[in-house]
Amino acid sequence: MMQTLQVALGARAYPINIGSGLIQNADLILPYLKRKQVAVVTNSTVAPLYLEKLAKPLRDAGVSVIEIILPDGEAYKNSDTLNLIYDALLKNRCERSTTLIALGGGVIGDLTGYAAATYLRGVPFIQIPTTLLSQVDSSVGGKTGINHPLGKNMIGAFYQPKLVLADIDTLQTLPQRELSAGVAEVIKYGLIRDADFFDWLEINIDKLMALDEAVTMYAIYRSCQNKAEVVAADEHETGERALLNLGHTFGHAIENAMGYGVWLHGEAVAAGTMLAADLSRRMGWLSDAEIQRMHALLTAARLPMQAPNLGVDRYLSLMQSDKKVADGKIRLVLQQGIGKAVITSDYDANKLRETLEAIV
Amino acid sequence: MMQTLQVALGARAYPINIGSGLIQNADLILPYLKRKQVAVVTNSTVAPLYLEKLAKPLRDAGVSVIEIILPDGEAYKNSDTLNLIYDALLKNRCERSTTLIALGGGVIGDLTGYAAATYLRGVPFIQIPTTLLSQVDSSVGGKTGINHPLGKNMIGAFYQPKLVLADIDTLQTLPQRELSAGVAEVIKYGLIRDADFFDWLEINIDKLMALDEAVTMYAIYRSCQNKAEVVAADEHETGERALLNLGHTFGHAIENAMGYGVWLHGEAVAAGTMLAADLSRRMGWLSDAEIQRMHALLTAARLPMQAPNLGVDRYLSLMQSDKKVADGKIRLVLQQGIGKAVITSDYDANKLRETLEAIV
Repeated sequence: MMQTLQVALGARAYPINIGSGLIQNADLILPYLKRKQVAVVTNSTVAPLYLEKLAKPLRDAGVSVIEIILPDGEAYKNSDTLNLIYDALLKNRCERSTTLIALGGGVIGDLTGYAAATYLRGVPFIQIPTTLLSQVDSSVGGKTGINHPLGKNMIGAFYQPKLVLADIDTLQTLPQRELSAGVAEVIKYGLIRDADFFDWLEINIDKLMALDEAVTMYAIYRSCQNKAEVVAADEHETGERALLNLGHTFGHAIENAMGYGVWLHGEAVAAGTMLAADLSRRMGWLSDAEIQRMHALLTAARLPMQAPNLGVDRYLSLMQSDKKVADGKIRLVLQQGIGKAVITSDYDANKLRETLEAIV
Repeated sequence: MMQTLQVALGARAYPINIGSGLIQNADLILPYLKRKQVAVVTNSTVAPLYLEKLAKPLRDAGVSVIEIILPDGEAYKNSDTLNLIYDALLKNRCERSTTLIALGGGVIGDLTGYAAATYLRGVPFIQIPTTLLSQVDSSVGGKTGINHPLGKNMIGAFYQPKLVLADIDTLQTLPQRELSAGVAEVIKYGLIRDADFFDWLEINIDKLMALDEAVTMYAIYRSCQNKAEVVAADEHETGERALLNLGHTFGHAIENAMGYGVWLHGEAVAAGTMLAADLSRRMGWLSDAEIQRMHALLTAARLPMQAPNLGVDRYLSLMQSDKKVADGKIRLVLQQGIGKAVITSDYDANKLRETLEAIV
């Protein structure tokens, strides 16, 4: 079973194929290769599960497959690991017609996409995201990059893949925490711009958590569709695209303070989303009943909602160093009801302090 | 005195201003700033000559100017130096609206442009090239990047500046060898596609070497115009743009073998151009008389024409590792007369060996 979503970005349109049994289907990949050489970048967790499944049918079709296996974890999303990819590409004399394939979660996608954007000033790139989070987030938007000791995602490029394969079979081996982190991102699309999808999620959350095939495919499809609509209108993140950062400014502060990788990105975003909701409620933009619905859905998704108590000043300082700051002022994505988010610096700073003080 | 050439690249069109007294003219720069903050990247040779000239009028106009002074030399065009730029930008909390200004030659332009392409996934970028080579080469085409221990310019991005200021006053402090290296690139445009310009250069070469104002401006203007025409037709170097690499495959082999920076890029290109010409003559595509004209012009430009004797096999191996190799075959830019170059792998490999053997 497979559905295809076409992401329209001018000359750089590409399809996202969503379904089961996609990884081992070389016919989906072959038409996108400029020559029969690919370099598959993956990590030590994903490689034993899926690398051979992908590589064998390609080799059988006459494709030369270079395997680049990186250590697993957000801690490795840095320039040293990036250099491991460059070194392997250069040692194998990969050329501009060599296609890079990212096989893994968000870290692998970001690293591989950035390597593809910058190796020989750009080579083709295919994404095979193996986590729910990366299927609904990294599949659309073209964000690639690495972390810097002074901040997350500080170095990067906008670079679009030629093709995305979101194979839901890979979710079967995903730890529950990571599945929940992905669902947090799915819920986000409902919260910021798609109230109907939020309603649908309230009904289907248990099936989604159980990875029911049709429900999972629809959740991924509709998430990518929402993201694609936002991104198409704003490819380089100057305006509406910032809506996608609901919970992220709080969330990045949490990730940064706790050390990258201690909280999963989606977990931090979930807790951050509840902080943003709390501030929205204090501003009178969100009702207690709506907060209750959000709370119930995130609970069903087994997400942590209790942000760590870092202290108000620490939060504010960390939020200020987030790159979504325009001219020194913290802009936040806040909610004006379920299905409607706004980007604003026009909130009461005292109420932001109250929200942060209310964390226990 | 100032002339402006508009480089048309779709949504990313930008002007090149060519003339004298441009660096200290803040009014040329101010309209291009998104906010009043710039980071000027330069090197320890250029900084004492021109940094204050650029920075003071900007500061007087209320612009915050961050100064990033790098060590001078091709040897520093690497990831360590790139990190010095990132570190300075992050420590100064530079945002997406901060403009990077490259003040220096090709190395500074490539490093700064690449930092601009990748810092926060892209910030605005202004180029102030201070060598003749960078004024006629890096001003157009959007190539940015760094070297890798395994090869030159292996890591990079295509990224266009918002504005280029080619101030010919800076050529007054340029060592003669570097001036000659720039003239080699100017002559190249005549050789590959502009026979009239080659004729003009034969007449005006002494004035150009003496930096006569009108002649220098015209030489830069016409060079950039030629390059812009080629690049506009082929922004990402898939076809005709490769013509600009006349002498480069031989030249890169020379630079690589001698160690980056021992031969200047333009010197290596000049010697490489004569090797390409020699092969073209052996193929019957270039006459002895044309070789003589080229020889005379390069001599007047005080360029070395004697390639180092590396041995045939070393040359071939180095040329093969150049990234202008398509599917393992060395493609070369060869001449079919002055003003007409072709990209071809359809030459007699034995004659290539003869050309390399004839080096003494």
